Amino acid sequence: MAVAADTIRALRWDGRRLALLDQTRLPGEETWLQLTGAQDTAQAIRRLAVRGAPNIGIAAGYGLAMELGARPSLGALEEASELLAGARPTAVNLAAAVARVRAAALAAGPSTIASAARAEAQRLHAEEDAASAALAGHGADLLREARTILTHCNTGALATGGRGSALAVCLELAERHEGVRIIACETRPLLQGARLTAWELGRLGVPFELIVDGAAAGLLRRGAADAVVVGCDRVAANGDVANKVGTYAHALAARAAGAPFVVAGPVSTIDLATPDGDAIEIEERAAAEILEVGGVAIAPPGTAVRNPAFDVTPAELITALVTERGVAAPPDRASVAALVPAP
Amino acid sequence: MAVAADTIRALRWDGRRLALLDQTRLPGEETWLQLTGAQDTAQAIRRLAVRGAPNIGIAAGYGLAMELGARPSLGALEEASELLAGARPTAVNLAAAVARVRAAALAAGPSTIASAARAEAQRLHAEEDAASAALAGHGADLLREARTILTHCNTGALATGGRGSALAVCLELAERHEGVRIIACETRPLLQGARLTAWELGRLGVPFELIVDGAAAGLLRRGAADAVVVGCDRVAANGDVANKVGTYAHALAARAAGAPFVVAGPVSTIDLATPDGDAIEIEERAAAEILEVGGVAIAPPGTAVRNPAFDVTPAELITALVTERGVAAPPDRASVAALVPAP
Repeated sequence: MAVAADTIRALRWDGRRLALLDQTRLPGEETWLQLTGAQDTAQAIRRLAVRGAPNIGIAAGYGLAMELGARPSLGALEEASELLAGARPTAVNLAAAVARVRAAALAAGPSTIASAARAEAQRLHAEEDAASAALAGHGADLLREARTILTHCNTGALATGGRGSALAVCLELAERHEGVRIIACETRPLLQGARLTAWELGRLGVPFELIVDGAAAGLLRRGAADAVVVGCDRVAANGDVANKVGTYAHALAARAAGAPFVVAGPVSTIDLATPDGDAIEIEERAAAEILEVGGVAIAPPGTAVRNPAFDVTPAELITALVTERGVAAPPDRASVAALVPAP
Repeated sequence: MAVAADTIRALRWDGRRLALLDQTRLPGEETWLQLTGAQDTAQAIRRLAVRGAPNIGIAAGYGLAMELGARPSLGALEEASELLAGARPTAVNLAAAVARVRAAALAAGPSTIASAARAEAQRLHAEEDAASAALAGHGADLLREARTILTHCNTGALATGGRGSALAVCLELAERHEGVRIIACETRPLLQGARLTAWELGRLGVPFELIVDGAAAGLLRRGAADAVVVGCDRVAANGDVANKVGTYAHALAARAAGAPFVVAGPVSTIDLATPDGDAIEIEERAAAEILEVGGVAIAPPGTAVRNPAFDVTPAELITALVTERGVAAPPDRASVAALVPAP
């Protein structure tokens, strides 16, 4: 089937300023935020106007570059780097992108600090775009027999460079084969599947069905999907993966059903400095994310909440980790390390 | 700790008429529906104003009795029995309760058809109340070491006679021991955990935290709960259990975490005529349940949906089935059959 390629963009860089499609307003409204520096970029990251581990990194890189355009000093560089790198804790891309743009700025002279940062942020962005296309090809090769794919959260153009990570694999499969269908989990609490993946797939004309997260395991048990493909927020050195809360249950269900469980993401999400999943900090977010949906209270006032934004899927449940530099199948210390270029 | 006993009632029978606490309006409003016959009772069951396998059965029994009070004829008996038994497909209690009240009515003479039906419905209700208390004791004996219990959906007084099934086990534990806490899954799509379990536990003063369904597996993996206790809509002869969608994923996660996974329900939910879980019809419900929360659209218009209301947990994942007549641990053909009284 034909899939309209690259029609969705979450970030637009005009050479000086970053515009962000505000994902908290989708699917109801397509509102673009015009960012100007580190403060508003960090704020956009914290409140999830931009999300997805790779896109968070890209936005932070531009945020740092924009700040240096306004305040081209080492003081501003340090201050903005710290602010941006600390905006969210779980994904490694954010800290890595900030570190990379910071290093480029430090290596430049005082007069070129801003232009060097801009150039590095653009390079990072271009690399993430290219990574998406390459990993989609590897994933579609791996899953060439699969026609119904279950996925979680949003891993499309709204999350990642290019057409995304896990969703880019699905789109590549849909371009290569007739009859590809997606089962999209709504992904509570913030409903990125219902709001964002449904919006992307609807725009692209790819057939899909939306389910509640809790329905995935039973549907897999009944053979309703041929494979599960998800993204990743951080891959540890041993192949354990932190991803959006709810992912681990899908991995257990895929294993029980004998369906492949594939994690797709750019190499930038691999953090060899994190030995395993237990070392990944799991962000706990605000109670209101659970207690209200679209401004409507769904629980009695004052209800206590636990709201971990991510969970860890152990490597032994992962059939393959798909990146732009190839596939680790299964992911383990050796196969994961082999994907990461030497520093 | 002290738990206020028996302060919550979902059904009130005044000897002639059934009043139902409309659970679709909770926790925002406590609205009582005054029912008069089979039509409005079936409608209340279909739209989930009354829910929980045992309570559906109790309501249907009263619905049939009320209909016979208005139309004391064999024609009305057959018509109302068919209407009520077909209101929802998955729970066995509904069909069994209707069959039981119908049989009592058939055994009575024409002049006592209505009073016989009323008496049988009241007996059924009293038995479910007693079953709740007994199974709570057995469950609390079994889980005497557990202090943090993860549960799904609503299995309290709003679902079942007495204080409920799985939630009654939790309440019994909270009465017997200090420091008992509940982790309540919100239970999409209809949020019975967020709306109903949170409301019950708040009223009873039992400490709890609300989570999204997808967070359960990761929290179990991190050791955040000592046990999982859920209710059941139908138990097959081999011990497979149909329960609210999302249950199976919790069973997989409990197994992976080494935590006991306990199913609690009255013997009336056991159906020896259903050989195994594959033979249980899984009700598919309307798309709007997923696409709207509290009247607010959460996905793009026209999004296609799959909405199975239940899933099946295979017996091999179940540590124990707790009923008023004792415990099947693990549940299998022999241990389940031993719980069911001879006909």
